[in-house]
Amino acid sequence: MSEFERRIYNFYGGPAMLPTPVMEKAASEFLNYRRSGMSIMEVSHRGKLFEKVLDESLALLRELLSVPENYEIMFLSAGASLHFSALPLNLLHEGESADFAITGIWAKKAMEEALRFNPVKKIYDGEDHKYTEVPELDDSMVNPGAAYVYITSNNTLLGSRYPKFPKLTKAPLIADMTSEILSRKIDISQFGAIFAGAQKNIGPSGLSVLIIRKDLLGRSKRTIPVLMDYALTAKNKSMYNTPPTYSIYMSKLVFEWLKEKGGIDAIEKINEEKAKLLYDYLDTTSFYQAAVKPSSRSVMNVVFTLQDKNLESKFLAGAEEKGLVGLEGHRLVGGLRASIYNAMPREGVVALIDYMKEFEKKA
Amino acid sequence: MSEFERRIYNFYGGPAMLPTPVMEKAASEFLNYRRSGMSIMEVSHRGKLFEKVLDESLALLRELLSVPENYEIMFLSAGASLHFSALPLNLLHEGESADFAITGIWAKKAMEEALRFNPVKKIYDGEDHKYTEVPELDDSMVNPGAAYVYITSNNTLLGSRYPKFPKLTKAPLIADMTSEILSRKIDISQFGAIFAGAQKNIGPSGLSVLIIRKDLLGRSKRTIPVLMDYALTAKNKSMYNTPPTYSIYMSKLVFEWLKEKGGIDAIEKINEEKAKLLYDYLDTTSFYQAAVKPSSRSVMNVVFTLQDKNLESKFLAGAEEKGLVGLEGHRLVGGLRASIYNAMPREGVVALIDYMKEFEKKA
Repeated sequence: MSEFERRIYNFYGGPAMLPTPVMEKAASEFLNYRRSGMSIMEVSHRGKLFEKVLDESLALLRELLSVPENYEIMFLSAGASLHFSALPLNLLHEGESADFAITGIWAKKAMEEALRFNPVKKIYDGEDHKYTEVPELDDSMVNPGAAYVYITSNNTLLGSRYPKFPKLTKAPLIADMTSEILSRKIDISQFGAIFAGAQKNIGPSGLSVLIIRKDLLGRSKRTIPVLMDYALTAKNKSMYNTPPTYSIYMSKLVFEWLKEKGGIDAIEKINEEKAKLLYDYLDTTSFYQAAVKPSSRSVMNVVFTLQDKNLESKFLAGAEEKGLVGLEGHRLVGGLRASIYNAMPREGVVALIDYMKEFEKKA
Repeated sequence: MSEFERRIYNFYGGPAMLPTPVMEKAASEFLNYRRSGMSIMEVSHRGKLFEKVLDESLALLRELLSVPENYEIMFLSAGASLHFSALPLNLLHEGESADFAITGIWAKKAMEEALRFNPVKKIYDGEDHKYTEVPELDDSMVNPGAAYVYITSNNTLLGSRYPKFPKLTKAPLIADMTSEILSRKIDISQFGAIFAGAQKNIGPSGLSVLIIRKDLLGRSKRTIPVLMDYALTAKNKSMYNTPPTYSIYMSKLVFEWLKEKGGIDAIEKINEEKAKLLYDYLDTTSFYQAAVKPSSRSVMNVVFTLQDKNLESKFLAGAEEKGLVGLEGHRLVGGLRASIYNAMPREGVVALIDYMKEFEKKA
């Protein structure tokens, strides 16, 4: 039995499971990258070995997401929270306002951080119905003078997502896609910028990706800390400072794996099938309950509860025994959650459903 | 022959060589961390597996550097450049000034970034003698009203360092120790704060460490981007957001290795021996030249030139053939540089000297 066969199914919200072939490839060259006698982790970011990794990773991401030429792609250190601060600093003049659609906790956090630097306006708040659905946005909701409209495309904690994105003309749409980037087809040209922390569908934590329309770079003339300055990062091709080299290397392996699997079209189909299996089962029983409205359900994070909440810890313990880990909901919302990102194979979802059925029967 | 025997000697300035036993340990549990069936890279930062890693890493660092109780230790995403912006934002009131001793390019960069947010004063500038020595600082040089005095303790590019640190009473001393942290004994109580990017003596790039006197936290009441807010990071025990979990895991392995080796006392002795071997050889010949004044010489970065600069590329190519890589100087200064951080074994330095002698003879 290879060590890897002991692998279990990991449903963590993030840092999350990475594709098994990616992990195996990374393990195989961990100590000796391409016969260099060194790990890719140990080489200078200015050396040929790493520069090739960086270039290839950026090119693969551009290809996978069909990013138009008038958009920059860059890597930054740290995750989405960096952009919560960086977006107002880079895109808003002093005193200028941005619009926020609040569909969950991350959008709220992003708005609160922006508010420390600029005025903000809420154009939607799902609090009344406990964020169980997402709105249909359109130009009529955009406030006059709003420099951008901010959304969280997939709500990791609550298990909802925008089934489709608006084509706004009154202000650029900015989306936090941390928990669903690379999982579904998107038309980049509908967005002013998208960003994502790496730790769900891209690679290890401590890295984020930003895709931004070039004309938005340098829009504000404010004093921005260097590592949050999008224009400076773009100008220096993600190498203003020493980037998180190993995380970028891992991201390249993930992009290669995804391309080989058939790209976004192929993974989107697989993701929809996986999610459908789980939701279809949830819809057949009242033992488990999924609160999110069907049309707003996330394909990445399936959030549910037990009708009898007292059974939760028993459910989680039993799952762990079966090698199904990370099913606890986010500490801010409780309940249960199965994060089924790109790396989760169909078999993992099937194993989870089998366990859920068994648990229901026994209870 | 194990794959690892093909390892070469890597003199990169950073990201740099990591200790061979650390790399082997990391490789051995890369796919399956402690029989969890997962990589430590793939688990939630809020789960027990990672929280233990984080706690242990912070505790080891406190132990290795004998950090007093009145200092916080924290991890932040990104390297030293983050602190170039974060220091003025966290420690200076609007309009308040800080003092800078310019002993090289990194101190200059830190000062220039601080200057974007606050007034700064230079209390020393080694430009006239091309930064070939570092000053002896004392209270008499500190400007009235300076909120802190900033130094770069070791100058990676130029190969100089402070042989000893001043005991200032007029303002706290803040030191960028990126390229020498954990390489020599220091008395933390002489400093208001020290920080270091991880990619030389700690672990992979994309992580930094900050050790700061608790009374300095929250000193400024400014609006600081969340990921740069030291007080917020401390309050959240380095987990305000998802930290770079794998890099923190690697840092723990490095700290364990260092402790096992005998801690800072032991490594300092080894480091001094390694550097002495190299400098002693450089002092016997005019074929190679080391510009830095002997009392200011770095123990981590040995910077030298060839008397005949035309031989540089031949020197580098010959070195690579011998498995000695990364000897080119920093792109901003040129010349040659052997970075001999904690991870570089004595044998690597001996192999380098052998090659240098041979090259000299043949030339």
